[in-house]
Amino acid sequence: MGDMSFISDNQAGVHPSVLERLQSLSRGSAAGYGEDQWTAEAESAVQRVFETDCAVFFVSTGTAANALALSALSPPWGAIYCHDGAHICNDENTAVEFYTGGARLVGVSGLAGKPDVNTMRAHMEIATVHGVHNAKPAVISLSNVTESGTVYSAHEIAPYRDLADTFGLRLHMDGARFANAVVSSGATPAALTWQSGVDCLSFGLTKDGGIAAEAVVIFDHALAEEFAYRRKRAGHLWSKHRFLAAQWLALLEGDLWLDNARHANAMAQRLAEAFGDHDSIDLPWAVDANEIFPVIPEQLRDGLRQAGLEFYDWPARPDMTRFVTSFNTEAAAVDQAIAIIAGA
Amino acid sequence: MGDMSFISDNQAGVHPSVLERLQSLSRGSAAGYGEDQWTAEAESAVQRVFETDCAVFFVSTGTAANALALSALSPPWGAIYCHDGAHICNDENTAVEFYTGGARLVGVSGLAGKPDVNTMRAHMEIATVHGVHNAKPAVISLSNVTESGTVYSAHEIAPYRDLADTFGLRLHMDGARFANAVVSSGATPAALTWQSGVDCLSFGLTKDGGIAAEAVVIFDHALAEEFAYRRKRAGHLWSKHRFLAAQWLALLEGDLWLDNARHANAMAQRLAEAFGDHDSIDLPWAVDANEIFPVIPEQLRDGLRQAGLEFYDWPARPDMTRFVTSFNTEAAAVDQAIAIIAGA
Amino acid sequence: MGDMSFISDNQAGVHPSVLERLQSLSRGSAAGYGEDQWTAEAESAVQRVFETDCAVFFVSTGTAANALALSALSPPWGAIYCHDGAHICNDENTAVEFYTGGARLVGVSGLAGKPDVNTMRAHMEIATVHGVHNAKPAVISLSNVTESGTVYSAHEIAPYRDLADTFGLRLHMDGARFANAVVSSGATPAALTWQSGVDCLSFGLTKDGGIAAEAVVIFDHALAEEFAYRRKRAGHLWSKHRFLAAQWLALLEGDLWLDNARHANAMAQRLAEAFGDHDSIDLPWAVDANEIFPVIPEQLRDGLRQAGLEFYDWPARPDMTRFVTSFNTEAAAVDQAIAIIAGA
Amino acid sequence: MGDMSFISDNQAGVHPSVLERLQSLSRGSAAGYGEDQWTAEAESAVQRVFETDCAVFFVSTGTAANALALSALSPPWGAIYCHDGAHICNDENTAVEFYTGGARLVGVSGLAGKPDVNTMRAHMEIATVHGVHNAKPAVISLSNVTESGTVYSAHEIAPYRDLADTFGLRLHMDGARFANAVVSSGATPAALTWQSGVDCLSFGLTKDGGIAAEAVVIFDHALAEEFAYRRKRAGHLWSKHRFLAAQWLALLEGDLWLDNARHANAMAQRLAEAFGDHDSIDLPWAVDANEIFPVIPEQLRDGLRQAGLEFYDWPARPDMTRFVTSFNTEAAAVDQAIAIIAGA
Repeated sequence: MGDMSFISDNQAGVHPSVLERLQSLSRGSAAGYGEDQWTAEAESAVQRVFETDCAVFFVSTGTAANALALSALSPPWGAIYCHDGAHICNDENTAVEFYTGGARLVGVSGLAGKPDVNTMRAHMEIATVHGVHNAKPAVISLSNVTESGTVYSAHEIAPYRDLADTFGLRLHMDGARFANAVVSSGATPAALTWQSGVDCLSFGLTKDGGIAAEAVVIFDHALAEEFAYRRKRAGHLWSKHRFLAAQWLALLEGDLWLDNARHANAMAQRLAEAFGDHDSIDLPWAVDANEIFPVIPEQLRDGLRQAGLEFYDWPARPDMTRFVTSFNTEAAAVDQAIAIIAGA
Repeated sequence: MGDMSFISDNQAGVHPSVLERLQSLSRGSAAGYGEDQWTAEAESAVQRVFETDCAVFFVSTGTAANALALSALSPPWGAIYCHDGAHICNDENTAVEFYTGGARLVGVSGLAGKPDVNTMRAHMEIATVHGVHNAKPAVISLSNVTESGTVYSAHEIAPYRDLADTFGLRLHMDGARFANAVVSSGATPAALTWQSGVDCLSFGLTKDGGIAAEAVVIFDHALAEEFAYRRKRAGHLWSKHRFLAAQWLALLEGDLWLDNARHANAMAQRLAEAFGDHDSIDLPWAVDANEIFPVIPEQLRDGLRQAGLEFYDWPARPDMTRFVTSFNTEAAAVDQAIAIIAGA
Repeated sequence: MGDMSFISDNQAGVHPSVLERLQSLSRGSAAGYGEDQWTAEAESAVQRVFETDCAVFFVSTGTAANALALSALSPPWGAIYCHDGAHICNDENTAVEFYTGGARLVGVSGLAGKPDVNTMRAHMEIATVHGVHNAKPAVISLSNVTESGTVYSAHEIAPYRDLADTFGLRLHMDGARFANAVVSSGATPAALTWQSGVDCLSFGLTKDGGIAAEAVVIFDHALAEEFAYRRKRAGHLWSKHRFLAAQWLALLEGDLWLDNARHANAMAQRLAEAFGDHDSIDLPWAVDANEIFPVIPEQLRDGLRQAGLEFYDWPARPDMTRFVTSFNTEAAAVDQAIAIIAGA
Repeated sequence: MGDMSFISDNQAGVHPSVLERLQSLSRGSAAGYGEDQWTAEAESAVQRVFETDCAVFFVSTGTAANALALSALSPPWGAIYCHDGAHICNDENTAVEFYTGGARLVGVSGLAGKPDVNTMRAHMEIATVHGVHNAKPAVISLSNVTESGTVYSAHEIAPYRDLADTFGLRLHMDGARFANAVVSSGATPAALTWQSGVDCLSFGLTKDGGIAAEAVVIFDHALAEEFAYRRKRAGHLWSKHRFLAAQWLALLEGDLWLDNARHANAMAQRLAEAFGDHDSIDLPWAVDANEIFPVIPEQLRDGLRQAGLEFYDWPARPDMTRFVTSFNTEAAAVDQAIAIIAGA
């Protein structure tokens, strides 16, 4: 029986190309702290992905990437607007508060992981009137892929950018599964980010085949100026930095990162169809990427688990479960899972 | 010609055993965020090294280890006493201030990297009298190996512990090169830490053959209680945590970490003798571990560099240079270097 | 025409007794930074009010009192639960985040300014299960008088204390209008605080006749131990500290603070009746203290304002207004206001 | 016998004009949080003092003024250079670290309270070379009057401004006794600040006759832009703000603040002569303002104290004492003190 764990793509292993690249850099000396040639090459590779000379800072976790990014975008007295189910709001402890020096996350509700623009605007209007007594509207943070597994098109990002412009805010994107969003939307990385007015992207490839491969990508160079100081004082500048860079070189080469995401998305599609075909299972949210959130009755869940399926009960909605596919989910395992679901 | 870079042991590569272990864990799924079996095994391995059930937290940089450790030992209004040449004071930006919420480093001078105990006591006496108007004495931080390449014996740690007891302080040890100190002193890891009154150790194996292998080792469990929250909010809890643990499993197995350090120390000894034999070169500090700080006249330096030697000019003392050996410094390269030095 | 400003009790003047006391201490020298005899006397006076040897720290603003208090009760990774209309949540910028080093406020909805206990519990349950990934439940903060002008009895505080005990939290009370709550409830200060399990009170007399008279009152001495360091580093320890103490001596003497509050509450009662008698005006919340929140149609508001009444449009509910009385609201002005309301 | 306390000018009382002004504003209502007319008037009065449209923010302590000012001038990773005896370094706990989010104070030695420019430059050079590994040079902070009672002329400020320009730093002045410096130097407030390149001044009148009268005066408007948010979230925005403003209106009117300082300085001059005339007493530092630091043998100190003189033993130099005069030091008390000194 194949591996039928669909708990999370951060439980997946590492793509062989990543390990090979680590191996190839493991002998001999190299300058430390990002002064080596491979770091420079990896930064260039990211710039090619985005078709612009963005500033790139590699770090080892998505929480670090998000918190560092937001600390560059918001003053300590800023309000950061995001979906109330966002990862920065629910799964990263108080990292944002720590890194920003005390900014405030304002969770905004909205369908399928996308915060309602009008509700957001209402928050900003009150805050603006109230002046120094309130946190100052500073940043909108969107997740693409969202925490509900849906994907923003460039078109859908526009109203948030408009709102940000109206009130003088920055726009951040949490791209922990950015590869899956790119593949799903069919848009270019540029179109989904700076061409849509995104100022800064947390770009994650850990889930997409890396070990610890996250980056802060800053499109507005004024914001990047002192970012290196932020990373250093947070303890996120590796001494043997080439081993962060190596992961990026491996995954970006030949668009492996997109192939990996394409596979994961395809596996999720197939699984989603099986859920959709089942009379007792509901799929409230579109399956745009590699995450599926089926509503499964309690008894049925037990059956699936006894048959070997592993998945997550969604804490924010007790009736909901989450299945995630990854770059190394095997088609055979998905076939098996589909058969189990169909027979349940 | 072999690799004659003696710039820093953090420029060294990775030990093959570490890569093998990464490889062996790279397929299949595993629980994330340190909930996997390999993390548990690696923690146990560290506990065996210290012969006690210490709390162990793996992170990816020495700066993170130090800053997190000190944040658990000092209140935001605390004073942290260290040598004025210490790494936390000169090479980690304001990480300590950031993580502690604003504690203050008090640099104390002293010979060969070891802060003068009497000067330290005088600082504490003034601060204590001055009450809330001053930072409150909170922590003594010692580096072993020191930033001057010297090593503390257990016997030498005692007066700092006595001082800490007198004023109610905690004792921290920065062990970025702890393996080299253990090998050099001949003492056990336990003797150099908790048996000498060290409350918390930053234990680094990155320089000793790892990729990003640092740990906070806490001997007083009361201090460890909420440490996991600190690490998480700092973005230092890896999702694919088993790849941090794997490095420790590889390096601690069969005491590879000590063999690596023994080699590095031996290479430094040989190099030090060559410097000692040269009429125009002075060695002001004992070469206890894998670092050598020769005073070399300007012209002689140029000659060494032209002959292929790579080393660091020591910023704090313009007349001084630094040579560092590592686990993978080749004996042949050292022979070559010795010949160059002798002939210079 | 009398002063018909009902905008806020923090717009009121200063009670003559306070000024007399300042005057009496204004000549001659005295020890600075709270080492003077009047500070000691004022601290004792507060202890007598609460019938216990609580720790007392005077500061000059309510925001400082709240933020300092919460920083002593919550770790930087803590969650602080309060009503979603609470002052700490809406009117004190990000002071709580700043002082706590990044703790998170969790606003909980509930009727008439009192957060719903079951909703609060649900938040804590999810956070507890989610471990380090979430802010750790740390404090419940209640406002008495609430931001809706209602008052908690001791009986009503009990369920929050029970909840705090279940999950290991601290209980804080924002008493910016504590005098009005004491007078309204008929309970003793002790009964409303430590006897109900309140660990720490922000006790304000600025609105009750002082100039800048706020205090943090800590009932658990373990929490108070290093509080003096917090206050000092926040710049809230006055050098000429006796002029903070003087305000407390004046207001607590002969229970002037309660007389002032009794007057303010009585004036609000009379005004509330006038609103209640008006057919087009609704009073959704009980008028327990010195604040009234009438729902007044737009056109009617204009009339009241043209007739000389000054009041606040409530930002959180556009249909609502706020009228506040104070220690120096004149009965004649209230009579006039009543006549205006009746005739409108 | 008159009041012969020369311990500190922050132990002095309050000038009658200040109390009268408080009294005159104590009746009736006024807009809160600095939106009242008196605050506007007081801000204008400060602008007239400096002959420029500087931004002015009133707060209640000198520590708050310094820490808030420096937080606007330095990033969290900044280095702030000051004399190693400066108040911000020794007497304000870790307020600077707290407010700046973790910047570092670098104490620089120098004669009579003035940091050595060349030593300062050497620090900056090393820090600049070391890049992100070091705190980034950000601010020079000078105290005028210095902590040694000496005064900078405009001419003496120039080399610090030059240094700041070379390395791109801001220049801050701690003016807790600015009035005494103005009177002593004979220069205008403008000449001693923005005309000498000072970006921001902590301007204190508490010691000069106020109760709690401190201000942050910002000469570069770009720095002032979000300062109001800083003050608010620190809990330093008073609700009854007119009572801060009232103190400034009283003290600036008719140059009372300068008359007060002139008196204090004159009293110090007379006392200094008495010390200078005594064979066993040494005055190592010039008495430029209202502070005297005589070196007095132990036995002689006892005699002075038994005769009724009160003064401070200087903690940083055990052989030294400090005498401070103030706006309300009586000439008769000084006569008496002089007689005691002469006879000792």
